[in-house]
Amino acid sequence: MRIAVDAMGSDYAPREIVLGAIDAVREYGYEVVLVGDQDQIEKELDAWGDWKKLAITIHHASEIITMDEAPSVAVRKKKDASLVVATRLVRQKECDAVISAGSTGAGVAAALFGLGRIKGIERPAIATPIPNTAGGTTVLVDSGATVDSKPIHLVHNAIMGSLYAENVLGIDHPRVGLLNIGEEEGKGNEQAKATYPLLKELDCIRYIGNAEGRDIPKGNVDVVVCDGFVGNVVLKFGEGLVSSLKTMLKEHIKNSSIWVKLAAAVMLPALKKLGKKMDHNEYGGAPLLGINGCFIICHGSSKAKAIKNAIRVAAEYKKSRVVEHIKNHIIQEDNNANE
Amino acid sequence: MRIAVDAMGSDYAPREIVLGAIDAVREYGYEVVLVGDQDQIEKELDAWGDWKKLAITIHHASEIITMDEAPSVAVRKKKDASLVVATRLVRQKECDAVISAGSTGAGVAAALFGLGRIKGIERPAIATPIPNTAGGTTVLVDSGATVDSKPIHLVHNAIMGSLYAENVLGIDHPRVGLLNIGEEEGKGNEQAKATYPLLKELDCIRYIGNAEGRDIPKGNVDVVVCDGFVGNVVLKFGEGLVSSLKTMLKEHIKNSSIWVKLAAAVMLPALKKLGKKMDHNEYGGAPLLGINGCFIICHGSSKAKAIKNAIRVAAEYKKSRVVEHIKNHIIQEDNNANE
Repeated sequence: MRIAVDAMGSDYAPREIVLGAIDAVREYGYEVVLVGDQDQIEKELDAWGDWKKLAITIHHASEIITMDEAPSVAVRKKKDASLVVATRLVRQKECDAVISAGSTGAGVAAALFGLGRIKGIERPAIATPIPNTAGGTTVLVDSGATVDSKPIHLVHNAIMGSLYAENVLGIDHPRVGLLNIGEEEGKGNEQAKATYPLLKELDCIRYIGNAEGRDIPKGNVDVVVCDGFVGNVVLKFGEGLVSSLKTMLKEHIKNSSIWVKLAAAVMLPALKKLGKKMDHNEYGGAPLLGINGCFIICHGSSKAKAIKNAIRVAAEYKKSRVVEHIKNHIIQEDNNANE
Repeated sequence: MRIAVDAMGSDYAPREIVLGAIDAVREYGYEVVLVGDQDQIEKELDAWGDWKKLAITIHHASEIITMDEAPSVAVRKKKDASLVVATRLVRQKECDAVISAGSTGAGVAAALFGLGRIKGIERPAIATPIPNTAGGTTVLVDSGATVDSKPIHLVHNAIMGSLYAENVLGIDHPRVGLLNIGEEEGKGNEQAKATYPLLKELDCIRYIGNAEGRDIPKGNVDVVVCDGFVGNVVLKFGEGLVSSLKTMLKEHIKNSSIWVKLAAAVMLPALKKLGKKMDHNEYGGAPLLGINGCFIICHGSSKAKAIKNAIRVAAEYKKSRVVEHIKNHIIQEDNNANE
């Protein structure tokens, strides 16, 4: 297993990316190709130590795509950008998967441009796992790749998300729900109202109807289907909420008696465990479903731990053969529709 | 101040509604008219005690609108439904405001049908206050009244939300942001891209550009403008997340050592305070902006405390004269546009 890593994306590049790659190589035994500025990457590797014994190579790329560039223009123009080069390594079968923590828009554009869509899928979707109270994971598809989705895009999100949940997360017959503002059929905006009946008549998934926002953390559903605009807002709201609750609790403890401070110290492991569960660094990265290859999108503020975990996710995604499963299902669906 | 209360809406009607009304009358000194089935309401009042000394009256209404009815049909057909009758009391100036914890859709329909829109406003919007880490409140407009909003509806949400934040929450020159998936202009779906420039050229609000999901709990913005579909999903997701975190923490404590259990007991007030801050029962109700009258929407699972607080919110909303402020501003905007 050989993973191409865009070493120049993310708020903490290249240092944290390099450190995460080192950890992944040592812990999982995969090969990693760090793509980006040779000098900068080498400097970080040297600072770490004797990296030449590790299964790490550097692939030089002279350009960087920044957060404020128009994604598709940048990807087409900057042919030697780390993101573009890393993606090319997968297309040329020199690597099995690629991960990037740069701009999500640029990642989606690079994946579309470099690897292309799976035949029959019109739009890609990011599948982000969210931990739930039921002790499992709820997959949010799409959490930001495609906005203004048509109903058929949401149908594809449902099929792809279901295959991801089954083959990567090991959920048997995952329950698929449509994110909506009420339980009953007929509720919601035009998009939701048009999508509901299409999902209902789909044989290849276990559709359980509408899911409301609260069903995601409660784990009443395994795969939540939505437009990338809604999914992205929800995901970032959740991140902000967890971080705000932490801040409020810390603030309160700071202003409390010594007893509360002591109690907080005793409870710290429990609180940390909870915080860890909700931390995006733990899941590392989210696959871009619908792309003809393994492309993993990481959070822009990924640190070493997130990159390490994203490399694990990339390998799992490749091994699970979800891309091939999606291809087979979409052909099947097309045949059914034509019968 | 005389508040009409739909006593038959909500999951816990009529008991919790009646108890909440009693608390509000005793604590705030307002008059309350409980609208609904005379016998059922009287039974709950009698069970409480000597209620005839209180400023509470019953206004009989023979019908109820249930959660599964099509809102506008039900509101038009059931002329003697508690919700419809309570709204009528405001139109006839017998009451100053109305609150309902029944179906949100039915509430919106009853408000539109019974009180009408403010001239110049095409669609109503629910303004829900969300506590933030900055120690203040962020108002989410719209959290569920109107879906498939046009850009002009979002512009109106911005103006109305700003006036609400200023006149009810006492926020000076509130910062208004457009809920979006990125900070830069040009990001987002068609709706957001079309709305951004309209908000930018608006003189009467302090527009700070796009806000992301995480800016809501962080308090980087005072008024967050969005489509009711997105707002409703976000609100319910937040509710579910807070409740799930509580469950996870409780579960962990239950399975821990006696020391952790003791520490948890010491920390309970802090955790409760945090939980209280995030509890929808505390803010009670959210006004339906854009309606020509004071209509307060409550959570479907409102208990007595929520109803009591909603009655307070209704009175504050009436006293703040936000309805009149909106009327003046919309006329002003129209004049500016026509110059």
